[in-house]
Amino acid sequence: MYRTHNNGALRSSDIGTEVTLSGWVQKSRDKGFMIWVDLRDRYGITQLIFDEERTPEAMMEQARTLGREFVVQVTGKVIDRSSKNPNLPTGDIEILVSELTVLNTAKTPPFTIEDETDGGEDLRMKYRYLDIRRNPVKNSLIFRHKVTMEVRKYLSNADFIEVETPYLIKSTPEGARDFVVPSRMNAGQFYALPQSPQTFKQLLMVGGMDKYFQIVKCFRDEDLRADRQPEFTQIDCEMAFVTQEDILNRFEGLTRHLLKEVNGVEIGDFPRMTYDDAMRKYGNDKPDIRFGMEFGELNEVVQHKDFGVFNNAELVVGIAVPGGSSYTRKEIDKLIDWVKRPQVGALGMVYCRVNQDGTFKSSVDKFYDQEDLAKWAEATNAKPGDLICVLSGVPNKVRAQLSALRMELAERLGLRDPKVFAPLWIIDFPLLELDEETGHYHAMHHPFTSPKPGQIELLSTDPGAVKANAYDLVLNGNEIGGGSIRIHDKETQALMFDYLGFTPEEAQAQFGFLMDAFQYGAPPHGGLAFGLDRLVAILGGQETIRDFIAFPKNNSGRDVMIDAPAPVDPEQLKELSLALNIQE
Amino acid sequence: MYRTHNNGALRSSDIGTEVTLSGWVQKSRDKGFMIWVDLRDRYGITQLIFDEERTPEAMMEQARTLGREFVVQVTGKVIDRSSKNPNLPTGDIEILVSELTVLNTAKTPPFTIEDETDGGEDLRMKYRYLDIRRNPVKNSLIFRHKVTMEVRKYLSNADFIEVETPYLIKSTPEGARDFVVPSRMNAGQFYALPQSPQTFKQLLMVGGMDKYFQIVKCFRDEDLRADRQPEFTQIDCEMAFVTQEDILNRFEGLTRHLLKEVNGVEIGDFPRMTYDDAMRKYGNDKPDIRFGMEFGELNEVVQHKDFGVFNNAELVVGIAVPGGSSYTRKEIDKLIDWVKRPQVGALGMVYCRVNQDGTFKSSVDKFYDQEDLAKWAEATNAKPGDLICVLSGVPNKVRAQLSALRMELAERLGLRDPKVFAPLWIIDFPLLELDEETGHYHAMHHPFTSPKPGQIELLSTDPGAVKANAYDLVLNGNEIGGGSIRIHDKETQALMFDYLGFTPEEAQAQFGFLMDAFQYGAPPHGGLAFGLDRLVAILGGQETIRDFIAFPKNNSGRDVMIDAPAPVDPEQLKELSLALNIQE
Repeated sequence: MYRTHNNGALRSSDIGTEVTLSGWVQKSRDKGFMIWVDLRDRYGITQLIFDEERTPEAMMEQARTLGREFVVQVTGKVIDRSSKNPNLPTGDIEILVSELTVLNTAKTPPFTIEDETDGGEDLRMKYRYLDIRRNPVKNSLIFRHKVTMEVRKYLSNADFIEVETPYLIKSTPEGARDFVVPSRMNAGQFYALPQSPQTFKQLLMVGGMDKYFQIVKCFRDEDLRADRQPEFTQIDCEMAFVTQEDILNRFEGLTRHLLKEVNGVEIGDFPRMTYDDAMRKYGNDKPDIRFGMEFGELNEVVQHKDFGVFNNAELVVGIAVPGGSSYTRKEIDKLIDWVKRPQVGALGMVYCRVNQDGTFKSSVDKFYDQEDLAKWAEATNAKPGDLICVLSGVPNKVRAQLSALRMELAERLGLRDPKVFAPLWIIDFPLLELDEETGHYHAMHHPFTSPKPGQIELLSTDPGAVKANAYDLVLNGNEIGGGSIRIHDKETQALMFDYLGFTPEEAQAQFGFLMDAFQYGAPPHGGLAFGLDRLVAILGGQETIRDFIAFPKNNSGRDVMIDAPAPVDPEQLKELSLALNIQE
Repeated sequence: MYRTHNNGALRSSDIGTEVTLSGWVQKSRDKGFMIWVDLRDRYGITQLIFDEERTPEAMMEQARTLGREFVVQVTGKVIDRSSKNPNLPTGDIEILVSELTVLNTAKTPPFTIEDETDGGEDLRMKYRYLDIRRNPVKNSLIFRHKVTMEVRKYLSNADFIEVETPYLIKSTPEGARDFVVPSRMNAGQFYALPQSPQTFKQLLMVGGMDKYFQIVKCFRDEDLRADRQPEFTQIDCEMAFVTQEDILNRFEGLTRHLLKEVNGVEIGDFPRMTYDDAMRKYGNDKPDIRFGMEFGELNEVVQHKDFGVFNNAELVVGIAVPGGSSYTRKEIDKLIDWVKRPQVGALGMVYCRVNQDGTFKSSVDKFYDQEDLAKWAEATNAKPGDLICVLSGVPNKVRAQLSALRMELAERLGLRDPKVFAPLWIIDFPLLELDEETGHYHAMHHPFTSPKPGQIELLSTDPGAVKANAYDLVLNGNEIGGGSIRIHDKETQALMFDYLGFTPEEAQAQFGFLMDAFQYGAPPHGGLAFGLDRLVAILGGQETIRDFIAFPKNNSGRDVMIDAPAPVDPEQLKELSLALNIQE
């Protein structure tokens, strides 16, 4: 037996007991006549003591050889600690060691195993197994486990059945790029790894499973951006015989359960906002509503004056920055530079200080008098002391720009408190989205999303206006989940594929099994999927998902620890009926 | 809202309530003046009634159009049922329908949606979503969910953390064939899908995670046999600072918890048997101990007589078949034919009836007298009325043959009761296994398994004799789990790779990350993995795993429902820097 207790367990009530502990040497202090060693494991730290009065000389010498991260086993007596450490749960006691065994030695780790490490990102990824020893990463993984346990508990109690769907499925041209898996037994053919279990969960509804969920890995072969992984985890859910209302209530319940159980936060009913309102008020379909700074549309109050920039703009829109009237001219100029960065893309920014005395000072005083500017303040809900920032241009673009500015300012103002949780449903998403490059519409959510009742006829006349029973759950400015009511009859599904540019043959070849299934008694159904990596990061109060994934890949999709991907044996390729075809 | 209750919920206490139900038409009976419809969902069946006295004529007509598997919604009043059905939980009531809506029609299903279906295997696979509506499949999937929930509950309560390990990892030449995944961003390179998360779970132990588990899909590109799937699910577990004893106790606890919670069966301590004993007593490393029929070795009592077959055999071994003395000569001849089938491969079988009066009648009476045969009976523990079956030959082969005969006879005798559970640990597995074709030894479990202390020196002198701290959990003649104490130091691991024929460069290229990790303070560790598909099937009292997998593949690795694998677009291959290379 390697231990009687873990290193977080012992208290003063254990004094006098003989115990055996195992763990890693966190640090040691050698004062000559006395040596203290902090012994660490997942559960905590316990102080070991060796002293020349009570410890044999040979063991004193052995204790002196213990380096950082050595793995040791000790037996000894729990004794009262002379100088207590109130920051440590075990801080009232220490272990007077009578037996010491080195279970394994350790080379000096390439970075310090401390909460704040000196290791850079690359080094930490290469030695991820050492990074996991650090509290921030270790605790994130334990937190993730806690979240998934609570998800399963809640859904299982609500009659959901977790069903495993296959990982080796069929490649579809729709959506993002698939990872494919060559089949050896079916030469020249490929499986694909699922981007989501979408069609399978719908088939489970056709199969009468009624309420399904699965915490499941999904795969997308896309060019990676920061904080996006080629493999990611979804909480995938589907329900039969439900309306949108049923689904929103159920997953609001799940989210509320998680906030309560893992964060200790009680939240009331989640607000709901239509997609159109979200775009108008926040320029964004995943608004962070932990703070205000709602958009004020200014067309009516700014146009028909002599200011050509505004007169020629399709949309003039502003926000009030709390306390911003005190910004210096230099600070405001920096803000203007910020919105002109290519990542934001505004051509300029008009501003107006709302002075503490209620007067206004704008960058366009030549065109607008105090009375005009009072209307700006009214439209943007600006208070004395605020700064009104105004952008203008094409609606889609200017909204995105002002949204970026709003988020940046909120960040600077400390309004994005990770301990505050502000969930929000965005509903009534458009069914289709215009691809500005090709001029074609494609499915905003996916081709299985049902248009709202009675709106399907609009497809041929005003496709952009067709709304769907599609919804996203937004938490603190992040989309953490999304779903829809699905099409459940073959005719509508065929019409949708037709509209999206599939020939009937293509639709049949790719999704014939689903349309066939719809002919054998498909119930109305709908569902939702949460992005687990993002969800746990936000619940954990973090911005990035990487510490919540045990073995993440870097931005080139590489696992630098195991060095994958890697070349394979030519013999293996031959068995798969494949050859390399690398273009220079 | 589609329903106020599900179809398994209503009882006589609900009589008088107005309810709304949705579901599938299981069947309908039309007596002209009265129509009964059985409405089905996952939760049960509720009887609907339409009658010409109380139901409007138009609705009577509509009810007549309802076909099998139509999806309908009804509103009506819960009424007392005139002829109760005690076999149905809802059998005391029926619904007098006042509103009827057809939510979806259904073509006639290709097989009946009944517990006993007329659909063959192929048809059921193609229309798996209909097969899932049948109770045997539906209940198997729900049972699987229940098992996994209990696994997670038990392990989580025991401080295990579920950690997701990556699916896109590195291909290794060791073991079975990998499925590979070409990387688009790293031209000419491939990920592999994990055959198990073995190295990752060990790295989590190096990382201090202490107790890990994961219910995880694994992949093997092997030629498929019946009841083997290219993707399968493991309950994967690993623990640090543990001895074999700690691991056996913990997973015995898990198995006992499952038997209690999902089967309602209480089981005491699991017996343990060494690999050598299992092979000697049952000719098999996964013996079914629900019944006896232990092997009796007969060399000492049969040799040195005039029977050359036995005299020349390395091993002569027999079993006593309960009640077998009553078999006719013809039945015994059939048994002899059975053991001579190529799948079993015996050259013949000697037998001896133990008559009710205690006398013996053998097929080799010419060579053995009553006193000799009494010794056979003693060695095989045969009672009056039994039949002793004796095989002889090379030990490995003859044991396998007699084991096959033992299982076959137990099956015929009804001794393999799926409601009886007989777990068993097999311990002290050999570290290495001789490949009879190549004459080389390879790792019996995997190359990370630790030899027993002090035995590593035997590697160079008597490799077949080296035992490992490796163990299997056997349930009712099936290996449901297996594991080992791992190597946790670089030197031993390097030695093992060397012994297994890796050059130092190959070992470093494939497993360098693991051996590096061992240098930074690796704790002693070990673990175990359960095959979930098999485990749930056995707990569910079934022989085959297929009904416990929602969407299984056929024996050619095809999903016949979605028709995968399938060819992919040439453009897609080009992006992956690949070309087809099909050999005729």
